[in-house]
Order: sequence, then structure tokens, then C-alpha cells
Amino acid sequence: MSDREPGSRLHASGHTDGSPLRRPVRSTLEESVREQAVRARAAAEILARADTLSKNRALEEMASQLESEIASLIAANRKDLDRHGASLGEASRDRLHLDEKRIAAMATALREVAALPDPVGQVTGEWRRPNGLQIGRMRIPLGVIGIIYESRPNVTADAAGLCLKSGNVVLLRGGSEAHESNRTIAGCLREALHKTGLPADAVQVLERTEHEAVDILVGLHGLIDLVIPRGGEGLVRAVTEKARVPVIQHYKGVCHVYVDSSADLEMAEAICVNAKVQRPGVCNAMETLLVDRSIAMQFLPDMLRRLKEEGVELRGCDETRKHHGAVKKASEEDWGAEYLQKILAVRVVDGLEEAMAHISRYGSRHTEAIVTRDQVRAKRFLREVDSSVVLVNASTRFSDGGELGLGAEIGISTSKLHAFGPMGLEELTITKFFVHGSGQIRT
Amino acid sequence: MSDREPGSRLHASGHTDGSPLRRPVRSTLEESVREQAVRARAAAEILARADTLSKNRALEEMASQLESEIASLIAANRKDLDRHGASLGEASRDRLHLDEKRIAAMATALREVAALPDPVGQVTGEWRRPNGLQIGRMRIPLGVIGIIYESRPNVTADAAGLCLKSGNVVLLRGGSEAHESNRTIAGCLREALHKTGLPADAVQVLERTEHEAVDILVGLHGLIDLVIPRGGEGLVRAVTEKARVPVIQHYKGVCHVYVDSSADLEMAEAICVNAKVQRPGVCNAMETLLVDRSIAMQFLPDMLRRLKEEGVELRGCDETRKHHGAVKKASEEDWGAEYLQKILAVRVVDGLEEAMAHISRYGSRHTEAIVTRDQVRAKRFLREVDSSVVLVNASTRFSDGGELGLGAEIGISTSKLHAFGPMGLEELTITKFFVHGSGQIRT
Repeated sequence: MSDREPGSRLHASGHTDGSPLRRPVRSTLEESVREQAVRARAAAEILARADTLSKNRALEEMASQLESEIASLIAANRKDLDRHGASLGEASRDRLHLDEKRIAAMATALREVAALPDPVGQVTGEWRRPNGLQIGRMRIPLGVIGIIYESRPNVTADAAGLCLKSGNVVLLRGGSEAHESNRTIAGCLREALHKTGLPADAVQVLERTEHEAVDILVGLHGLIDLVIPRGGEGLVRAVTEKARVPVIQHYKGVCHVYVDSSADLEMAEAICVNAKVQRPGVCNAMETLLVDRSIAMQFLPDMLRRLKEEGVELRGCDETRKHHGAVKKASEEDWGAEYLQKILAVRVVDGLEEAMAHISRYGSRHTEAIVTRDQVRAKRFLREVDSSVVLVNASTRFSDGGELGLGAEIGISTSKLHAFGPMGLEELTITKFFVHGSGQIRT
Repeated sequence: MSDREPGSRLHASGHTDGSPLRRPVRSTLEESVREQAVRARAAAEILARADTLSKNRALEEMASQLESEIASLIAANRKDLDRHGASLGEASRDRLHLDEKRIAAMATALREVAALPDPVGQVTGEWRRPNGLQIGRMRIPLGVIGIIYESRPNVTADAAGLCLKSGNVVLLRGGSEAHESNRTIAGCLREALHKTGLPADAVQVLERTEHEAVDILVGLHGLIDLVIPRGGEGLVRAVTEKARVPVIQHYKGVCHVYVDSSADLEMAEAICVNAKVQRPGVCNAMETLLVDRSIAMQFLPDMLRRLKEEGVELRGCDETRKHHGAVKKASEEDWGAEYLQKILAVRVVDGLEEAMAHISRYGSRHTEAIVTRDQVRAKRFLREVDSSVVLVNASTRFSDGGELGLGAEIGISTSKLHAFGPMGLEELTITKFFVHGSGQIRT
């Protein structure tokens, strides 16, 4: 980075057409996206070799930079809100909004990532072959990762931090309504990279905001190694449809709690209330409650009353409806529904087998819990339920990278390739084989 | 499987239109492929829960079945050879050919897979959270795997064995010239599954041989979890282009050996001859030799003479050409070429940095080796070279699942998603999280 261009490539990531002499006409959309990806690829070679200390220093500096630029961050966010706020719903407007507290939280998250162990260079196994070859596997970064997200600007800092720590370069494409906020956040992060001697192009916000820029980005086979769409099912499907590069898919979370005949009923009630009510709008909230027939009479009346008091709309099978007057009849669609709100489907089942068959038929392979005191059934549930997170005697709400102890989360995969479930730093790496010999040849 | 249909679904995998009453007209191509995939998906649910003993018993029975059906296997192979042999090159005809020895080798490979540890259910890590949650990760199968391959019928048994052991269902699509052989092999394997109580549909050969059947197969998002094309770059690109499901990509192997200034030159010569000559037609053979300038004079004249004696055509940089009269001038294309025959590109470089820069620019991220006695340079090469297998003082020919100690190999990935390099049983699994709690809820 030359001193004669102070910050021009730092603050306006991808903004290389500052000099009219070098670029008399604005580049086409495709040229612009590709040019950013080419710069990302070049940065990836350097970043893959960066040592832990350099990366941590950059993360700390990123946090400080965000804190010292609070005024300009809030001003940029104000522009976004002025331009787009009126067209957004209340929830989206709230997600877009940045204040001092939220900026401080971004800085804290970056410092937390700095404190996590560096996965790059970790040796995940070593063994010796009969011919004396010493073999091992070592974690390396994936390369260039595209993140496609919706309105929350904090994703810009969170994703950049996780990618940097794992030696990956990130190309960020947030919602166009948050473009000024995201550019300004990325500007701070790039400034920090520059100051600490790492390539600023390791963090870039896609400069062009046209919708088609996403289609171009996800088609850059050979330049982009992985795309992670963070958003609703529609976004994920649209990206998957267009992609020529691998995509981590996170469809929906139709999470179940199964209350077994041997459950501690008080525990079951607490877990169910937590799983449904604590934050109903997220993917790890319970959407269907399954109850063993033998305890339905004991368990359901109190449970349903309690949920009703919490404002939950109940939709159940005929058997369930006997235990509470306000339970509507569930339709076939209710069993596969991801409500993301205070609605719950409830079904009485004949034991573990039927519970697991229901989950297999209607579930989304995201997260399921069993409440039981029976160790054999607990073990069967853990082994046989085909979901990314399976829990015994705990709320489905723990299905989250931070809560599971991954430190932080770049996304959740509901497909089984590369990762299944919450993805942390390790999931942003892959292993290569290394071999120490003493002249071995193959015969 | 009813006794009234003896073997009808066993020997003719996918052949469910045996009864004219049930299926008066032949199903369309799409219906046929989809129907096989639906049966595969159903079998996958059962196979994921199969215990190690059952799977091993089936593998042993598969081996016995192949041995006892040698006559019909050779007869089926004869049909393929009669029909297609004339149109095949000698190499392809040889790959297609089955004899007693090759059938015995298939049986042995199945028994070897039976002897490998079962990856399914393996716990790859366990930890405890401050709130008392006990968290772990457990390996589970991927589900339904499509294998698309060319003429070698032994892939049918090898791939089926690895998939079965890892709890996966396999849909096999070999070259149409090997269809009778593949069907008959699959018939034996299905018979063995049936006899040992596992679903025969866990191994299926795609019934329809039209080229378009592959396009349909790789488009079955939600039914097929992964496709592994095993063949040339053209096949891999064609499959990737059409796929709506994840594909493991294995493009090319442009493998390098770098002979460092501190190399044991005798060792270097042996490694280079082995890497180039022992089996030139495979992806882990050396295609480019890089030699440090400071030892070029000592090393190259003998090395080049020796390679020449082995029948290797040499193409080199100007500096290389000084050391042997028969070296042709290498063109820019030679540096990135995957010759797959006895041709070698040779370049003199200025030390480790230039060697690594050359590999980064022209390599295919497959396999590279350094010959050196310098531990610091060895370590830098291992860490910094971005290839799936990096070796110190050993031949590139060891880049192979069996040689690396994975037991066997389902394929090689040159992309970094899910796997990078040779893939064994573990790479046919993914992990899920399991959580033991005592009533924890999220606050």
C-alpha cells in the first residue's frame, strides 16, 4: 500500500476507480466483482502464512479502530436509516440500527476472537507407517470466503474477525440498506489490517450493490472457495441455485423436544418453556413438542396451561386437545412448520420409536432434544436421531456455536458436507497431509 | 424383501419393472433415476443405524459371493468386451477386463475394508461447559453417495465396500461399456446384503445407461448427499457444471519435486526417478522437477542422463538445457502441464522462495515434495506449500489413501471443502454434536 494513496483502498474497499486517469470509465459490474475477488485471492496467499501474533494484533487493532470511529460509524448508519429506514419493517430497522452499545459489542467480539486458539497449523493427528514414513494432518485456511447477509451490520465485523483468525480472506456482501454502515465498518477493519502490516484486501465489502453482484460473486469458481449465506431460507435457496462455488446451506430449524415416559416432569416443563419462549424467532427454538402417551395425562395439562400463559398459540393432535381446551387442531402442515414465533405444535406419541419416526419424517435435521431419566433411551436418541445437534435434558436453545463452546459462530450448516451444525473457527479450515520421510520410494 | 421375488431386486438393481401388471410401460428416464434414489434414501436410514458387526458380516459375505460367482462375472465381462471392446483403446480394454485374479483382488479389498475401524459412532472430541453441559462430537454417515466412474469394474466393489463400512448408501454409475460387469458385481453385493439382513438397496447400479441419467442423478438435491466423479478432468468438470448437489472435485495432479541445495543427491535421484517413472500415468506422478541453482551443476547432469535412460522426454529452462544435450526448450504451457506420461519439465530456481512461487503459480494443489537435509526449509515447505499432500524426502507417489494409512481410498479432493487430498472412511462421515445436560436452560 503506497503512502501516496492514503486510505483510498482502505476505507473504500473495492473502490479503486478513485483516479480518473487510471480508470476513465466505471468498470462493468462483472469486472468490478471479479477484480475484488482477484485482490482477495492475492491477499489469501499472504494471510494463510500470517502467524498467530500478527492476526491477534490486527484483531485488537480492529476493535480499537471501531471504538475510535464511533462517531463516523453512527453517522454512516444514520445515512442508511435515513435512506432505507422508512421502507423497512420495525424488526429490520432495529437490526440495522447501530448505537454506542452495539459498536462496543462488535469490538468485544473481535477481542474474544483474538483470545481463541488459532486453528491454523494445528496438527490433528500423526501416525507412522511400516515403511517409516511419519504422516500427519495439519489445519490450513480454506482461502477466500464470501458471506452474504441481510441487514445486521455487526455481521460485517463478526465474520471478518472469524475469517481473519482462521487465515481466510472475506468478501462481504450485506443488505444494500446497510451499505454505508458496512463500508464504514470494513474501512475501520481495513485500516487496522494496514496498520498492523497485513493486507487490507483480506476484508472487503462488495463495492457494487446491484442484486446481480451476488450472482456474479457466487459464480467465481476458482476465485471464491466457499460462500456462506446468512439469512432466511429464500436467500439460501437463491444463492444455492446460482452458485458455481460450494455453499454452506442453512435451511430451517424445525426443532423438537421429546418428553419421554421417564422424564423429570418439572425439568421437562422448564426446558420446553425455555426452548419455545425465550427467543421464539430463532432457528434453535422448539417448534414441535412430542410427549409419550404414558405421561401425557400427568404432563400435558400443566404444560399446556403454562405455555398458554406465556402467550403461545397451541396446535395439537386429537389426544393433545383432550388436555387443554385452547388447543387448535393441528394440520399436516403444522408438523413441518418453522413458525419462528409463539406457536407450537404438540403431538402425543407411542414411545421413543414413534417420536424418532416423527422427527425423521417432519424434522429439518437441525436440533432435537429428549427429556428422560432412562440412559438407554437417551443413548439411542443421541445416536439415532439424524440432526446436527442432539441433546439430552437440555434446551434446544443451546444449539449455537458460542453455547457449545466453539467460541463464536460463522454460520450453521444443515447439510452434511464439510460441516453439520454450528460452525466455528475449525470449520473455517481444512486439513492437509504432511509426510516426513528418509528417502522412501514406492515399489 | 419377499420370498416370492427371488433375487429380482437383488441381481438387477433398479429393475423393479419385472411385473408387467405393476408397470405396464417402461418408466421415463427421470422417473427411473429418481426411483432408485428414493430407494437409496430409504436404505440410508437403516444403514446409518447398522452396527459394525452387521456391516463387517455383509462385507465378508460380499467377498465370498464374488468368489463363488467368478464364472458369471467373467461371462458378464465377456459380454461387455464383445460389445464394446473393439471401440476401446488398449488401455481402456485392459481396465475393463476381469479375470480370476482381479476378482480375487476385489474380494480381498472388501475383506480389508471389513478389518478397518468403523468410523460411525466414533467420538472425535468431548468437553464440558461452565454450565455443566457435557458436549461431544460423533461421526455419522453422509447419507446417499453417487459415484460416477469410467471403465474399471473393480471400482463398483471398492466404492460399495467403503460406503457400506461408513454407513453410506451408494448409487453407482460406471461407464456404459462396463454395464453388464457392474450389474453383475452389484448383484453379488446386493445378494450378500440381503443374506446378512441389510437392505440390498444400499448398493445400486444406475439401471439406465443413457448419458443423461448422470445429469439427472447429480441434480437430485435432497436425495443425493454427495457425488464423487472418479475419472479425468473432463468428467469432473462436466459433473460439476450440471450438479445441484455437492461434488468432490479432483482435477489434475501437476506434482512437483524440489531438490534443495542441502539435499542428499543420491536420495534426490532415487525419489525423482520413482516419482516420474514408477507409474507415469497417475495423478501423483511428478510432472515438474525444480532444482536449486547452487547444486544444479552437481545434480542435473547425472539426473537428466538417468531419466533419459528411463525413456523420459525432457523439457527444461535454458539453465537446465546446459546440463544435458537432449533437453528440449520448455514452453510456458509445459510448466502447468499434467503429462500423465514419460515427459518431465525441469527448471532451475533460486532457492526455496522461488520454488514455492513456481508451485503456487503453476501447481494444481495436489502433491509436492522437497528433498533436503535442512530442517528449517523442510518445515517452511510443509507449512507454506498449499497442496493437499506435502512431503519431505519421500516420493510423491505416496500421495494415496492406502499409502498414507487411510486403509483405502474413495477418491481424492483437490478442492478444500469437506476434504483435501486422499479420502478414506473418515471422509465419508461428518460429525454431529451431542449434549448431555441435567436440565440446563438458556438465560
